[in-house]
Amino acid sequence: MMTKNILHQKGIYFLSLDLKQLTDYIEEKKPTQIAVIVDSNTDSNCYHIIKKIIPFHQKIVINPGEEFKNLNTCSHIWQEMTDAEFDRKALIINLGGGVIGDMGGFCAATYKRGIDFIQIPTTLLSMVDASVGGKLGIDFNGFKNHIGVFDLPKRVLILPDFLKTLSPMEVRSGFAEVIKHCLIQDKAMWLEIQKISQADILGGKIDWQPVINHSILIKANVTDIDPTEKGLRKILNFGHTIGHAIETYCLGIVGRKLLHGEAIAIGMITESYLSFKLGNISQDDLNQICQYLISIYSKVAFSQSDIDQILPLALQDKKNVGGAIKMALLNSIGDCGYDFEISKKEMEQAINFYLGL
Amino acid sequence: MMTKNILHQKGIYFLSLDLKQLTDYIEEKKPTQIAVIVDSNTDSNCYHIIKKIIPFHQKIVINPGEEFKNLNTCSHIWQEMTDAEFDRKALIINLGGGVIGDMGGFCAATYKRGIDFIQIPTTLLSMVDASVGGKLGIDFNGFKNHIGVFDLPKRVLILPDFLKTLSPMEVRSGFAEVIKHCLIQDKAMWLEIQKISQADILGGKIDWQPVINHSILIKANVTDIDPTEKGLRKILNFGHTIGHAIETYCLGIVGRKLLHGEAIAIGMITESYLSFKLGNISQDDLNQICQYLISIYSKVAFSQSDIDQILPLALQDKKNVGGAIKMALLNSIGDCGYDFEISKKEMEQAINFYLGL
Repeated sequence: MMTKNILHQKGIYFLSLDLKQLTDYIEEKKPTQIAVIVDSNTDSNCYHIIKKIIPFHQKIVINPGEEFKNLNTCSHIWQEMTDAEFDRKALIINLGGGVIGDMGGFCAATYKRGIDFIQIPTTLLSMVDASVGGKLGIDFNGFKNHIGVFDLPKRVLILPDFLKTLSPMEVRSGFAEVIKHCLIQDKAMWLEIQKISQADILGGKIDWQPVINHSILIKANVTDIDPTEKGLRKILNFGHTIGHAIETYCLGIVGRKLLHGEAIAIGMITESYLSFKLGNISQDDLNQICQYLISIYSKVAFSQSDIDQILPLALQDKKNVGGAIKMALLNSIGDCGYDFEISKKEMEQAINFYLGL
Repeated sequence: MMTKNILHQKGIYFLSLDLKQLTDYIEEKKPTQIAVIVDSNTDSNCYHIIKKIIPFHQKIVINPGEEFKNLNTCSHIWQEMTDAEFDRKALIINLGGGVIGDMGGFCAATYKRGIDFIQIPTTLLSMVDASVGGKLGIDFNGFKNHIGVFDLPKRVLILPDFLKTLSPMEVRSGFAEVIKHCLIQDKAMWLEIQKISQADILGGKIDWQPVINHSILIKANVTDIDPTEKGLRKILNFGHTIGHAIETYCLGIVGRKLLHGEAIAIGMITESYLSFKLGNISQDDLNQICQYLISIYSKVAFSQSDIDQILPLALQDKKNVGGAIKMALLNSIGDCGYDFEISKKEMEQAINFYLGL
């Protein structure tokens, strides 16, 4: 496993263990004004940790949750920046999960055509995924991440201590992206990562720092090669075509909501099955993937009626030819391809395979 | 004068005389969907010229004028794109003046984190200024171009025929930016351009194509060197510090509205006076500038009360030290510098100089 504390990837710094990188940046760049964007959760749980080391600054508080990731909240953020007379040399620090990072980054990237911003992700999911790769944006009338830009933060500070502010289930959810990064890019790490058990995660017994560093490096390498998702970057969608459909479906039903990683785990099992059916991975590989993911995330039950509603969601908003869809699938463990054409029927078989486990 | 029909600047093509560049682009890139954004003016006067040569497309019509250059209109544009199921390979064609180009470009640059767009400016002002250099954006709660991004169109098509759809006063307004480009970058062209008289412009007697090509090349060279206005690009603000303040002031008074170029002409006279006071240009240079600009734009009267209200506008929203402001001023005819510190008192003297002409 990697143990470096600071990764430097195309001018972006990832730091573990302390906040010196942040104070160094501020001392060097001397921003004219600073704002920290938080939601009410990170305001209570995380803000006090960084408050004292940041010189005079504004705090912009927004409501927590995906349902506030919209233009109205952006207008609120832009207005607060305007009221505080932020100029082009101001700095935004986004302290929170994916919603704060995506939306706060978008507001910074568009204020006066772009001011500097720093991401301080507070969830495992945003540490290993949302904070890396420059995707910024908001939802628009029900469409997820529909309005946005690609822009890179000046720093991404990874402080695993913030994970202590999360529920163990939230940490487990973020871990799904860690597993995904191993499956699509690093077979050796896939073998290594399986030493982590559900009990380790829920019991808070993991030293996350090397795990996070490894995961970020994989994502950063992919997004450096293809920042705007013309090709290679699509492999990061492994597990997400069926996974997102399941997540969206369950979101709409009281009492059945799944966390992102819980849905992506099902997506990875079903899409590994499709990889197996194409002859890309062996029966043993498939068994190993299913066994480990279920040991971490347990099984979720779906009825035929559920499946009938999930499948159209997976097909939605894509260029379909005869009910087929393009997805990222494993070429082998540690190697992922993209633009594999899969039919609705094959997806249904994959979900039934999951249910039969 | 330059007479090339096609200029190629860092992958952006400027075309005169025909629309082949547009049809070639569409044939080559095969966008999945196309929308033409117009306002009610360009819908009536310009759309019919390009309608037939563009394959199946949507038309998105917005209200004309700066007062609609806001988030509400963006939401309307994004919604129409969403309703038509535009994907990442859709194409936006912006047909209009600066408002359409800036706002339509911003909507394209942020829809699904950026789709391709083409600018077809229909005013002289947008042909020689707004369409070049990648500044996109909208106004926000009274602040001009407050929210936006830098992004380059795939093509900028210059069709001087559209100038026939404008009032002569609009053409004269755009001409101020042509004069500015000569003064800040090309002494030889400054001598040449003075052959154009007010009667030529108002009488529609100019062959605009070589004039526009020259002007675009100057702006494109500057913005290529400094796309995000960290330094050199500031010279494009020559005439605009005092000019913008006068434009804003007059906008608020019924019956005194000035077109952009009419205000910038006064800005160029007053800021040339300041360049002269610094010893950068000679008395003869100053006289020549004043004489030519007044021959084109005539004189506008201001009272002491007007001046007292204009000066604070010029100082507004800038980092002032003791009532001073930084502006772009001529080093000599054809050469412009930036970050010259000018006091409020000096600005007042400059406006009084203009009034005394």
